[in-house]
Amino acid sequence: MPHPLIPRRELDFLLHDWLRIGDLPAVAEHGRETVDAILDLSEQVAADHFLPHYKDADMHEPRLETDGVHVLPAIGMALREYAALGLFSAGFAPELGGLGLPYIVCSASFAQFAAANIATAAYPMLTVANARLIATFGTAVQIDAFARPQIAGRWFGTMCLSEPQAGSGLADVRTRAERDGEDALGVRYRLTGNKMWISGGDHDVSENIVHLVLAKVPGPDGALPEGTEGLSLFIVPKLLPDGARNDVQVAGLNHKMGYRGTVNCLLNLGEGGGAVGWMVGDPGQGLRQMFLMMNEARIGVGIGAAALAYRGYRHSVAYARERLQGRPIGERAGPPIAIAEHPDVQRMLLAQKAYAEGALALCLYCAMLVDRHGDAPSTALLGLLTPVAKTWPSEWGLAANDLAIQVHGGYGYTRDFDVEQLYRDNRLNAIHEGTTGIQALDLLGRKLLRDSAGWAELRCRIGLTVAAAAKDVTLAPFAVTLAQMWENIALTLERLRAVKQPESAFDNATPFLSAFGHAVIAWLWLDMALVQAEDLALTAAKRRTCRHFFDHEVPKIAAWLTPVDTRGSESKVSAGTFD
Amino acid sequence: MPHPLIPRRELDFLLHDWLRIGDLPAVAEHGRETVDAILDLSEQVAADHFLPHYKDADMHEPRLETDGVHVLPAIGMALREYAALGLFSAGFAPELGGLGLPYIVCSASFAQFAAANIATAAYPMLTVANARLIATFGTAVQIDAFARPQIAGRWFGTMCLSEPQAGSGLADVRTRAERDGEDALGVRYRLTGNKMWISGGDHDVSENIVHLVLAKVPGPDGALPEGTEGLSLFIVPKLLPDGARNDVQVAGLNHKMGYRGTVNCLLNLGEGGGAVGWMVGDPGQGLRQMFLMMNEARIGVGIGAAALAYRGYRHSVAYARERLQGRPIGERAGPPIAIAEHPDVQRMLLAQKAYAEGALALCLYCAMLVDRHGDAPSTALLGLLTPVAKTWPSEWGLAANDLAIQVHGGYGYTRDFDVEQLYRDNRLNAIHEGTTGIQALDLLGRKLLRDSAGWAELRCRIGLTVAAAAKDVTLAPFAVTLAQMWENIALTLERLRAVKQPESAFDNATPFLSAFGHAVIAWLWLDMALVQAEDLALTAAKRRTCRHFFDHEVPKIAAWLTPVDTRGSESKVSAGTFD
Repeated sequence: MPHPLIPRRELDFLLHDWLRIGDLPAVAEHGRETVDAILDLSEQVAADHFLPHYKDADMHEPRLETDGVHVLPAIGMALREYAALGLFSAGFAPELGGLGLPYIVCSASFAQFAAANIATAAYPMLTVANARLIATFGTAVQIDAFARPQIAGRWFGTMCLSEPQAGSGLADVRTRAERDGEDALGVRYRLTGNKMWISGGDHDVSENIVHLVLAKVPGPDGALPEGTEGLSLFIVPKLLPDGARNDVQVAGLNHKMGYRGTVNCLLNLGEGGGAVGWMVGDPGQGLRQMFLMMNEARIGVGIGAAALAYRGYRHSVAYARERLQGRPIGERAGPPIAIAEHPDVQRMLLAQKAYAEGALALCLYCAMLVDRHGDAPSTALLGLLTPVAKTWPSEWGLAANDLAIQVHGGYGYTRDFDVEQLYRDNRLNAIHEGTTGIQALDLLGRKLLRDSAGWAELRCRIGLTVAAAAKDVTLAPFAVTLAQMWENIALTLERLRAVKQPESAFDNATPFLSAFGHAVIAWLWLDMALVQAEDLALTAAKRRTCRHFFDHEVPKIAAWLTPVDTRGSESKVSAGTFD
Repeated sequence: MPHPLIPRRELDFLLHDWLRIGDLPAVAEHGRETVDAILDLSEQVAADHFLPHYKDADMHEPRLETDGVHVLPAIGMALREYAALGLFSAGFAPELGGLGLPYIVCSASFAQFAAANIATAAYPMLTVANARLIATFGTAVQIDAFARPQIAGRWFGTMCLSEPQAGSGLADVRTRAERDGEDALGVRYRLTGNKMWISGGDHDVSENIVHLVLAKVPGPDGALPEGTEGLSLFIVPKLLPDGARNDVQVAGLNHKMGYRGTVNCLLNLGEGGGAVGWMVGDPGQGLRQMFLMMNEARIGVGIGAAALAYRGYRHSVAYARERLQGRPIGERAGPPIAIAEHPDVQRMLLAQKAYAEGALALCLYCAMLVDRHGDAPSTALLGLLTPVAKTWPSEWGLAANDLAIQVHGGYGYTRDFDVEQLYRDNRLNAIHEGTTGIQALDLLGRKLLRDSAGWAELRCRIGLTVAAAAKDVTLAPFAVTLAQMWENIALTLERLRAVKQPESAFDNATPFLSAFGHAVIAWLWLDMALVQAEDLALTAAKRRTCRHFFDHEVPKIAAWLTPVDTRGSESKVSAGTFD
């Protein structure tokens, strides 16, 4: 194994054989050669510059000193290489200095960097999201001043939403923005408040850091507006245009279980009189603006989780083929065999493959929908699938990494191997950018009970897969199972719509998301199994893994739906239960 | 919350209301006061001496220096306190200096220490197991020389089974023991070989360390016998009776993801000519001797995993009651509420309670069976349940700790809170003392397909619970479900017995163990829900948690049985699947 990243044949299968990205106008224009060149480059840079410091960055966390935060120098070197090769800009339009590559190609590229070093890859992911937000909602002057340096990879960006008392509940944000005149960069404010969990909040890698800050403008009475409607978005650079330090202080670093190379800060704004910031777009639009970007950020989290799962899977395969231990059941003599020959280890490898490739397939499918944003059904489907793309890879990618440790036995629990770090890194993904519980409410509430366009499109597409699979003698039984599963989910939704106390419909939103997510992945596995790729071995492996998913995973869907279907409000939990 | 350990009322419920340990002769003799005194003492010592250095021991790992291994001084201080109070000896017979307390009481005591600091608690656990093995199989002279100092807590013990090339596969052990005369301590040997994963393998806490080493005596041709039948057991002390150093060298330390306070060593035996060891019992009995102790060690692993789950649960409850975030669904104004009021958080707390208390119940039930070792059906049932007691708490205790992180949100992912460490610590438990895959083979092969006494006893006891629950209007539906589940498991076993290629019956042994384990815990939850304890609030909470387990967890059993029932040998995995 030259490196443990995602095999190129897998990406080629997903992008070309399965999703047929050649049909996208941007790809048709560039030609497959450009896509190939970007994927080649990404694999090489990820392997050469991101992978080598994976463990070092875990062992040498960022340090806060009097002059700011210092990160492992290898992180900066890798990111400067990334910038020099134009990878920050690849997805931006040519007029912004980019190549105009589709989101799905950028996502496939990002997956390699995330597989190599998720913590280092987080910096460009945040920076690109930041720049895209400014490019979308900012003025031309703001774009020139704050987006272009990020697109060039000279400045990095952050997203400042959470506060110590406001994580999932952004309505309670207390950062205050007071009007302070106007200049060429827009309407100017002075911000005061505390922002928590700021990834990339300070470091010594880039020339400047552009913070995008959610804050509230007080009313005439000086009080902050209630709810999320009062949130506006502000550009707050670390260094002001004149080179002076803005009033943003690092109040402390969070020391995490994993993802340690990504510095995570508590930032104090305005301790010296108010941090200077310029409003993006109109007042009160902050959350809406953030959420347009948040969808892509959520797919990005999913890709990262899938990539960690993939890498753990590849380490497991390599280890299982090398490690000799035990004999076939019933045999007591002869030399020990490779553990990859034991059925239980094969089960653990198949499960990892099903989770990792299923997760990656889902995220790239969603990235494809991002690229089809002109198409209303695609956009509705994207909205529906985004909470799944955030959650399923995070939950099951972690399960894959858990199995990767198990395949390695005691060695997997030591820091001499990478799998324990992959597992620690991946544990974050079910938390940041909206926890699993938050995604479940989004899926069931906003995306299903309140709207139905995405649901209709999903059922339609699943129907096409079922119809095609019904004609394949091996896959036909799975087609029947899949159709029945989705019928069951539809019945569950009908029951939830009929619940007398509407709020109690959400009591088991998370088990519902678990069921829904597995049913989505079952659909995608069946759809992938239908592809007859030129790579016959890969086609066979896809079909075998599809079968594993239907044998071992699909039966769980009914188990998760049971409490959703049966639990009513009579089962409320009394406070004393936990005494 | 004065401390996050296991509440006394929970232990009282399990020991007295549910398991009625007063019926055990040893408890009847001592009286409940002695049990209460031991539990009081354990709680206090665990809270005062084990809990405070939990995080310190994680941050300051054992160090290997030229004079040996040094551990955090607080570990030694805690263990000397533990020894001074007679806790090493509590379970041994009075003639060995102990109190003769039943195993179940010692287990409940151990659970508190494991909850407080699993890594520090591992030292006495290993030492007691070592001393018990010598006390069972050793000569009177060996007992005096090597067991008594451990029972007094002056010397500590280890178990040396694994080697770098032989973990799960002990048949491949290559440590060689050459006969070297005989003395008062028994037949003497010189040992050479490498032992891996030796917990407590060296440290600066106790006066001496007694290694129990599995090794093979070469035949007349100088070759080591094949298979596990050739394994014998040897006492190899770090310091010989004359005070000289034995030929045992620490070749390195394993750096683990968690459990860091427990030093874990690679030991080289015989680099200087041969480590002196005395055989315990007869040649070729090594594995049988180890396994008698291993059953208790496996229950001990389960108790540790359950204790970690319990502590994470208690941290979660405390945090969820304090942390204000969000509003009830449908409300947009008013102050934020405690997250313990959100149904999704309640679900995560209930799940943790169900896992932690279910796991602890299982382990104490098994400990009770250990105490009834004169009774053949109890012994058979203990054999059947031991792989479950090892595995279920390890797998679901980890799931509980995962939820504990999730309840804490981003804070739970930081090292400022204890839950991330609980999660890292607990991840070991599915690996050591026989991985989950090994336990699954033991359950399905040795304990079910080869023998049926334990199965008959289990079905009988479940039948009694079902009959009793059928008379309770609330619990009657669960009784029906439980009976049906066990009928399904019985049918699965019949199918597996009829498999044409017997070895393929084991292909899905691990999903079978998952199903079996959940069905065992469902039985115990129903059995606990039948108890009418004086503590009415606790009784109500048990019934509510039982309901949660039947709503959310029992449906999974069918999902795990599906692949066991359907997968035949036609589904073998070709080697190319993982390319």
